[in-house]
Amino acid sequence: MTTATELLQRLGGRPVGVVGLGLIGGSLGLDLRQLGVAVHGWAHRPATAERALARGLVDQASVHPQVLQDCPLVLLALPLDQLVSPSLQLLQGLPPEALVMDMGSVKRPVLLALQDRLPRFVACHPMAGTASAGVEAGVAGLFAGRPWVLTPTGQEDPEDLALARSLGEALEAVVLECDAASHDRAVALISHMPVLVSAALLSTATAAESSALAQALASSGFADTTRIGGGNPQLGTLMARCNREGVLRALEDYQRQLEQLRCLVSSDNWEGLEQHLRSAQAARPGFL
Amino acid sequence: MTTATELLQRLGGRPVGVVGLGLIGGSLGLDLRQLGVAVHGWAHRPATAERALARGLVDQASVHPQVLQDCPLVLLALPLDQLVSPSLQLLQGLPPEALVMDMGSVKRPVLLALQDRLPRFVACHPMAGTASAGVEAGVAGLFAGRPWVLTPTGQEDPEDLALARSLGEALEAVVLECDAASHDRAVALISHMPVLVSAALLSTATAAESSALAQALASSGFADTTRIGGGNPQLGTLMARCNREGVLRALEDYQRQLEQLRCLVSSDNWEGLEQHLRSAQAARPGFL
Repeated sequence: MTTATELLQRLGGRPVGVVGLGLIGGSLGLDLRQLGVAVHGWAHRPATAERALARGLVDQASVHPQVLQDCPLVLLALPLDQLVSPSLQLLQGLPPEALVMDMGSVKRPVLLALQDRLPRFVACHPMAGTASAGVEAGVAGLFAGRPWVLTPTGQEDPEDLALARSLGEALEAVVLECDAASHDRAVALISHMPVLVSAALLSTATAAESSALAQALASSGFADTTRIGGGNPQLGTLMARCNREGVLRALEDYQRQLEQLRCLVSSDNWEGLEQHLRSAQAARPGFL
Repeated sequence: MTTATELLQRLGGRPVGVVGLGLIGGSLGLDLRQLGVAVHGWAHRPATAERALARGLVDQASVHPQVLQDCPLVLLALPLDQLVSPSLQLLQGLPPEALVMDMGSVKRPVLLALQDRLPRFVACHPMAGTASAGVEAGVAGLFAGRPWVLTPTGQEDPEDLALARSLGEALEAVVLECDAASHDRAVALISHMPVLVSAALLSTATAAESSALAQALASSGFADTTRIGGGNPQLGTLMARCNREGVLRALEDYQRQLEQLRCLVSSDNWEGLEQHLRSAQAARPGFL
């Protein structure tokens, strides 16, 4: 049985609901429709619903939650703040018998906000993205080969977890499971804290006396190192806010490592510095 | 008059000497020969000289400095430590009547080491490179569109400076001039210090409890931010050693910026954080 067939069977031939039709929601819609699953989208604005239909992201779209009523599975592809502080309108609009999954990039606060308010809930983080946002951003194949992280609490029905896995597999993602706290610490390390590390580099180079010359001389190395620090400010802030503990812990660890490097330079310990850089070089392939 | 014609005239039709036939020396050889300038290479090892000839990097190559004797211009494309602590063999092998230019990435220590020991010297930093090294690394067109930084001290003969500029222009580089101290501070900011910032990110993610999960979840953002930190450890150390003051100053400025960001997070100042990230985002295009 293919992964698509298994998903279709688990859905009983019924549509999947998607709330939010931006990069993640739109990409989910495109891939699911390609697999033969009908997609019903609940959008905030009429123009988004219209455009999602025109782009073929969904089979049906509406600003009214009734569009979700036949869906056995509803995916919340909303900005993190709307997951962490869900509106009453959102909570009341979700069909009570459906399995609800969120697609947020921080898991503990989302579980705290949603787990007890929804009868059936599985927390999920598809680690995929592009720099785009909005109803034009969705692309086919966004999740293929990328981690699809489920963070079950142990309270889920095994059939619900199986459906959540089945969805990731049908999208050709790499399905992983871990607890929410470990997930949040790990993404703080490799995603949320590095945004601050990278942004501080831009602030330093901008504030420096030799900034004009630095701008003329900067090359691809500086461009790469500052890419994530020069990204969407709202998104970076939202990550830090929703993963505050993980970010602070990772940042303090980072500051210690950097201070060690500074001490190696200031004490002219060139062998020690080369050894540290050698370890960093050796570690990097593990993260690629 | 084309830039190539001007260079040929300034050279009086005589060959250019290149000392060191790695990435920079080999690339200089390829471009100069393409312009119709003969290139004579002085290599450390016979195998390098042979291979440089076979690859067409040079017209003549030898392990003996006599190969440079007819050259009115000699380019030192050597590792930084050999420029900062030049061997007697190097100093005695250079033809005393030639203009000598170095291609090192730090300028103050090179000037201190070479300016008073060579009758005619111009310090130069072509800001171009690839991840490759050695006699196989040289490529055509490496310098085109990239900064070609001259750091004159005021003691140079104007004709020598004009030849140094003419060379950069013939290679289609962007010729810039500044003082050596400003150059070294600027490259510390955008190149040498960021290596440490990037390496510390790898050390932090490797040392963390959640490192295995972080490795599984790391994506292109982490890959970009750690690219230069995972580069050649000898090179990173050499930069920090030869530009110690600039690197320490840039690193301390950086640590202050990062601590400001940490304080914004730990005091839940989300407006302040978003404002900081917005400034970083606005600053980045200036460095691209």
